[in-house]
Amino acid sequence: MDVKLRNYVYGQWVEGAGEGVALTDPCTGETLARVSSEGIDVGRALAHARQTGGAALRALTYEARAAMLAAIAEVLAAKRAEYFEISLRNSGATEADAGFDVDGAIFTLKSYARAGKALGAARHLKEGARVALAKSEAFQGQHFLRPLTGAAVFINAFNFPAWGLWEKAAPALLAGVPVLAKPATPTAWLAQRMVEDVVAAGILPEGAMSIVCGGARDLLDHVTECDVVSFTGSADTAARLRTHPNVVARSVRLNVEADSVNAAILGPDAVSGSAEFELAVKEIVREMTIKAGQKCTAIRRILAPAGIARALGEAVAGKLAACKVGNPRSEGVRVGPLVSRAQQAAAFEGLAKLREDCEVVFGADPAFAPVDADPAVSAFVQPTLLYCDKGLGARHVHDVEVFGPVATIVPYVGTAEAIALARRGGGSLVASVYSGNAEFLAELVPAIAELHGRILVVDAAVGAQHTGHGNVMPNCLHGGPGRAGGGEELGGLRALALYHRRHVVQGGPALLDALEREAADAALLGA
Amino acid sequence: MDVKLRNYVYGQWVEGAGEGVALTDPCTGETLARVSSEGIDVGRALAHARQTGGAALRALTYEARAAMLAAIAEVLAAKRAEYFEISLRNSGATEADAGFDVDGAIFTLKSYARAGKALGAARHLKEGARVALAKSEAFQGQHFLRPLTGAAVFINAFNFPAWGLWEKAAPALLAGVPVLAKPATPTAWLAQRMVEDVVAAGILPEGAMSIVCGGARDLLDHVTECDVVSFTGSADTAARLRTHPNVVARSVRLNVEADSVNAAILGPDAVSGSAEFELAVKEIVREMTIKAGQKCTAIRRILAPAGIARALGEAVAGKLAACKVGNPRSEGVRVGPLVSRAQQAAAFEGLAKLREDCEVVFGADPAFAPVDADPAVSAFVQPTLLYCDKGLGARHVHDVEVFGPVATIVPYVGTAEAIALARRGGGSLVASVYSGNAEFLAELVPAIAELHGRILVVDAAVGAQHTGHGNVMPNCLHGGPGRAGGGEELGGLRALALYHRRHVVQGGPALLDALEREAADAALLGA
Repeated sequence: MDVKLRNYVYGQWVEGAGEGVALTDPCTGETLARVSSEGIDVGRALAHARQTGGAALRALTYEARAAMLAAIAEVLAAKRAEYFEISLRNSGATEADAGFDVDGAIFTLKSYARAGKALGAARHLKEGARVALAKSEAFQGQHFLRPLTGAAVFINAFNFPAWGLWEKAAPALLAGVPVLAKPATPTAWLAQRMVEDVVAAGILPEGAMSIVCGGARDLLDHVTECDVVSFTGSADTAARLRTHPNVVARSVRLNVEADSVNAAILGPDAVSGSAEFELAVKEIVREMTIKAGQKCTAIRRILAPAGIARALGEAVAGKLAACKVGNPRSEGVRVGPLVSRAQQAAAFEGLAKLREDCEVVFGADPAFAPVDADPAVSAFVQPTLLYCDKGLGARHVHDVEVFGPVATIVPYVGTAEAIALARRGGGSLVASVYSGNAEFLAELVPAIAELHGRILVVDAAVGAQHTGHGNVMPNCLHGGPGRAGGGEELGGLRALALYHRRHVVQGGPALLDALEREAADAALLGA
Repeated sequence: MDVKLRNYVYGQWVEGAGEGVALTDPCTGETLARVSSEGIDVGRALAHARQTGGAALRALTYEARAAMLAAIAEVLAAKRAEYFEISLRNSGATEADAGFDVDGAIFTLKSYARAGKALGAARHLKEGARVALAKSEAFQGQHFLRPLTGAAVFINAFNFPAWGLWEKAAPALLAGVPVLAKPATPTAWLAQRMVEDVVAAGILPEGAMSIVCGGARDLLDHVTECDVVSFTGSADTAARLRTHPNVVARSVRLNVEADSVNAAILGPDAVSGSAEFELAVKEIVREMTIKAGQKCTAIRRILAPAGIARALGEAVAGKLAACKVGNPRSEGVRVGPLVSRAQQAAAFEGLAKLREDCEVVFGADPAFAPVDADPAVSAFVQPTLLYCDKGLGARHVHDVEVFGPVATIVPYVGTAEAIALARRGGGSLVASVYSGNAEFLAELVPAIAELHGRILVVDAAVGAQHTGHGNVMPNCLHGGPGRAGGGEELGGLRALALYHRRHVVQGGPALLDALEREAADAALLGA
């Protein structure tokens, strides 16, 4: 099958012109489909989303839109097997990898469907109490949040074609803002298919959901101060979006999630044989192998007390040695390929940089060969564990994010050095800490909190109940400062703030009463 | 007196090198002082602010920092007469103009001193309830906000040397974040003097407040992901800040308040002779004349029903004709000069553009001469009222902000056109509406809310109790989308969010209990 995936714009399924770009199977190199946005009028697509989709969505209440999210989740759940097949073919995903993406999307939609009910039959939000402005009550102020009348433009990453789309679309649609998705080209198939299924199911009003596959073309020339652009991907692309003249001139709201050199941190009590040590080993191996390390939240650096670091390396290496790497169609394979040869080349390049700072504990084997796949056409990277004893002096370890199954152990001495190393990442999505030592945690957690969107702390009492270092829960904030882009996603209803505008109305009580009618309480967003 | 104002950096008063830039009296052209930042190590200044000032501030509680704001307000109030004198000399401010700036600063500090008490003896904030993450309670999530460990860098505008500094510094200091202020050069004297007085009073810990007068030098090369840059000024400068490589690479938090073509909107009931008409006339005249129109919130466009627009023009023109324009030292003068010849030239340039779209109702008189001032050296612009019957077709009226005593009446037919015209501003700080017509307000206010940070609605019942179109109340949001920069300031404790970082901690209940200890409730920020 070598079809051209159609774009859904201005209420039509439109095939892009020209030859398009091939989507391939990263295990076999086979071309699966083609995408092209050539000839698509993205300005018209945006206008249609705003005028037709936005108006229809905003006419509904929050709870009506929440019900739509539940219906979307059902549609997707019914087609789960097809999506797993697409994930396998287009992303080289194992069943666990595909589940992480597809089931994550469904779970997130259901979570927002549930949370959105709390906003009830309202269409906008009032925030806080009346503000006193005059001696009498004849003149007061009231803050409100109203849904934007523009579109939510999603420029998404290749690693989560399903979850990456719906974790953004759920809060946008719940807020009443139509979505125009631009999935990353190499893995656009799954996102495109899902939109096709949701459009066919007739759940959403026309214009509420559009998708453009292939190049973004002149999309950013058409965004306005009423739109939101939400980007996930590389820091380089983020910089291009941030400095785009139209984005700058119109102060277009831009949410960015970019690179992140996330750390796992073992406490002084996480000695070999302890529950915390075992939990850390398990999580590190999981993070390195699931989706072949292609998660923006994956563990890239492992900070361990100097007396523990070597034993940790051996334990992780032992588990990695037991992981079968190859074609996920093959029995027992746990680690699949990267999504493309280009990603493979980028990972090798990054790995070469890291190796300037590091010794190899496991992997980077010149003789490595994937199971049931031809190294000449496939996109595999052997899981590789490195060890860097240069601490803060390392040249690349704290800056280079190898987007693959690669992590580096960095030994530290004393809590202050652990804090300095974690902060040296320059802003990350997540850090996980393996310790039950209250004193250590009391010092470390507040000191690194400023530079992390999320901190996961695991000890013996938490045990296997934790949701994972790299697993993004819809009811918890996702995003990180600095290198990680400075954006905020999810966190339950907090995510709706991105799609609303805050303002204050000053006037008489009758006017404010009228404006408050049918408004839900904005306090629910941070509740 | 022609002294060089010193910079306060790394705990020292340092005079900049070289000749410096002259600050002048805009009535006389006299040189008052000089500023220079040459030779100042701004990187060191920032490091000192963070390490010395930030650490000391964060060791204090919110309520202790609130008390400092009250003490600062007292110091400033005691020197009010001196500040009025500086405002007169360096800004050509009338007593009312100086009051708007100086008393506004003191009022805002007092407001934050009062509001900050509510945060009590805490040093950080917890946000919302525990998040359920596992079947048991052994693993949960909790969102927090912590003060940034960086510095708050203020790049401020020339029109509010006092208020512009303290409306930003109050929430930053309350949050525990040290301030480095870079006032606009032409009117830096007042800001510099205030910092001098506050430093001398010994209220703040060393490093909590720094000031650099003159060029910003390489300041932006030294900001990090832990700092905040808050800018007020032109869209051009805003664009330079936004696209600065270091700001982009580190996702430095940047709050922008830029141009704004604010509208006053008369409802269909605001007919000549009505209370709403009279209130509109009074407010328009006030907005055009106070601070000679040099307020980012000032009325630039006046949208009036076609049947009212001419009568409104006559009424406003009549009042403007009675306003004495000239040297504020002269008895009865109500309108002073712009702050500089450069601003005067820019205003004339903008006025010429507007006149391509407009007829003159009042002003723009070639024979205009200010009272008691030499037109050859002073910076006066005659208050000028224009009339544009081109509606949405106007080429400049909706885009060009003349930063002076200039406003344009634009007649409209029907509420839909009023909405379209107001929105055509592309995002404004404020719109004021003069109407008691509930139906009109119910249609207009929600439709323009998305593009305005604040909407003031005045009717007969509100009467003279309203706080004004251009008056920024500390307990109400200040900022606007799009052209206005997309930033958010003030709004009571809401302003503290800019200086905190949100994150979520996932872990066991004992850890979360410990982290919650001594945390205030973040719900107070939007209360």
